Amino acid sequence: MIIDCHGHYTTTPAPHQRFRDAQLARLDDPAMPSPKPAEISDDEIRESIEPNQLRLLRERGGDLTIFSPRAASMEHHVPDLETAQVWARACNDLIHRVVRLFPDSFAGVCQLPQTPGDPIGSVVEELRRCVDELGFVGCNLNPDPSGGHWTAPPLTDEFWFPLYEAMEELDVPAMIHVSASDNPSFHHTGAHYLNADTTVFMQLVQGDLFARFPNLRFVIPHGGGAVPYHWGRYRGLADRLGRPPLEEHVMRNVFFDTCVYHQAGIDLLFDVIDADNILFGSELLGAVRGADPDTGIAWDDTKRYIDELGLSRDDQRLVFEQNARRIYPRLDARTGG
Amino acid sequence: MIIDCHGHYTTTPAPHQRFRDAQLARLDDPAMPSPKPAEISDDEIRESIEPNQLRLLRERGGDLTIFSPRAASMEHHVPDLETAQVWARACNDLIHRVVRLFPDSFAGVCQLPQTPGDPIGSVVEELRRCVDELGFVGCNLNPDPSGGHWTAPPLTDEFWFPLYEAMEELDVPAMIHVSASDNPSFHHTGAHYLNADTTVFMQLVQGDLFARFPNLRFVIPHGGGAVPYHWGRYRGLADRLGRPPLEEHVMRNVFFDTCVYHQAGIDLLFDVIDADNILFGSELLGAVRGADPDTGIAWDDTKRYIDELGLSRDDQRLVFEQNARRIYPRLDARTGG
Repeated sequence: MIIDCHGHYTTTPAPHQRFRDAQLARLDDPAMPSPKPAEISDDEIRESIEPNQLRLLRERGGDLTIFSPRAASMEHHVPDLETAQVWARACNDLIHRVVRLFPDSFAGVCQLPQTPGDPIGSVVEELRRCVDELGFVGCNLNPDPSGGHWTAPPLTDEFWFPLYEAMEELDVPAMIHVSASDNPSFHHTGAHYLNADTTVFMQLVQGDLFARFPNLRFVIPHGGGAVPYHWGRYRGLADRLGRPPLEEHVMRNVFFDTCVYHQAGIDLLFDVIDADNILFGSELLGAVRGADPDTGIAWDDTKRYIDELGLSRDDQRLVFEQNARRIYPRLDARTGG
Repeated sequence: MIIDCHGHYTTTPAPHQRFRDAQLARLDDPAMPSPKPAEISDDEIRESIEPNQLRLLRERGGDLTIFSPRAASMEHHVPDLETAQVWARACNDLIHRVVRLFPDSFAGVCQLPQTPGDPIGSVVEELRRCVDELGFVGCNLNPDPSGGHWTAPPLTDEFWFPLYEAMEELDVPAMIHVSASDNPSFHHTGAHYLNADTTVFMQLVQGDLFARFPNLRFVIPHGGGAVPYHWGRYRGLADRLGRPPLEEHVMRNVFFDTCVYHQAGIDLLFDVIDADNILFGSELLGAVRGADPDTGIAWDDTKRYIDELGLSRDDQRLVFEQNARRIYPRLDARTGG
């Protein structure tokens, strides 16, 4: 079985975005009526998924996608908690409907109602709702809800601990995933996403978070940002900071996906990172749509790059299935493990 | 001849830092006297360089280091222009003295008196002083003088154009280099530096800066941040944004150094980036001091990794010497090229 750990619902039916637009318009003009989440039919959902994520999953030989709301649309930088809560619930409820319509092909991961300034209680509440009531298997955690201004404390700060306590109790991991960039310095998929991956990894090297939360698990997407390419730098910095080797200090709890869109990058990832720490992912659909004009291969068809590696059967099973089951144990309840 | 394009004066004699401390103390208490740059003897400078940067340069087989003030100490986030000007001048004057004492081994690159909020005129002024009067061959340009808050416009914004005009006129390149992080989210060498490299590259993909400044040249250090590892992502994003291929749109004016501290990373860099665009650099001394405990090789002994590649003689000459001479043409006036 082949599990893609990183898919987003980037093809939601248009009324969903119209609801969001109405939410944002009301923030500008509070006299406007409070909008209600869009009414979307099952057929509309099928039509948005079947020719897109589901088609590509099947064409490329995958079986199950761990599926979350569109990352750029989380828009945690919008500074209104109630708006964030209603929006996250609407997005997560749509994911839940996709999962119910295609239970063999999708498992749900939730958007959290983060904001730049609010306490984390409502984030925990939505995580519990999604896991307990909707059967979700994890969450996306934004280390920079300000959208590129980086005003939140590092992920090692006690600010985040109530969320980590809930994650350990529920036995769900978080994928580290920022949202839209509200800062003109940062293109979202070309800079902000990769920077966040790199930043969080280094926060974890500096801190000692997993001593306190030994069962906490983070998936750092986009192949770990800049980290594997600079693995020597991180090994050296860990030593310089008096931290244990990365394998003990960070890599028991941190995993990278394979959203690296060329062969040389995937080669490097598997060269320096243990197969136990790599999860197949493609980021469908899609940070980078289109195909390499030189080869005709879609940028995000990451399985093709992995297939070229000549991995052992054991490592293939780890990367395509077993790591995902270990890190997202609630998958097994769903998929009959 | 082997030219290291990326060295910093991280071993300045103690009085230099005491001067800086006095500057900062006076910002807190303007009643204090205005401090004067430290009086440092030639012997003190020799003693700070010979057993450190110069010894390592020679031991590792290098000939010349393109040398600039300590990056983390630029501290552009301190919001006082006069303080920044005096500090940059003091730092640059010290570099000039190193170059005069060891003219065969060092060439100067200047710190610019950037601040988070001031116009760019004084930056241009200090660049002209360093090039015209001190014989420097380039500058370090900080795309985020706020120190991790990213409040400056992207490097493609016209805010920066007066600097670019001066750089073209003087025929000097800039290394893109942030300074200390004033944001607890970002470790400086483990996150902020790499993020800046990645961010600027994507700004250049989005914009069209080199159409306006065809002779402008940027060296993006630390092996280009996350860029070569995600080369497929950037190729795809350029296509998606309707930009020409990266080779035409960016890589005629952008170069990466080799400050990547392990073999697999250097392998990847040379696998995806043309040898015309790579400059030998080691970041001595040093973002990451110490040696790999598994091999005993110093992390920043990047020449050893390059030597392992088995490059052709032509590519060796490009990476170790000719690219540097082409990108920093003022080197030739100094070194008799």
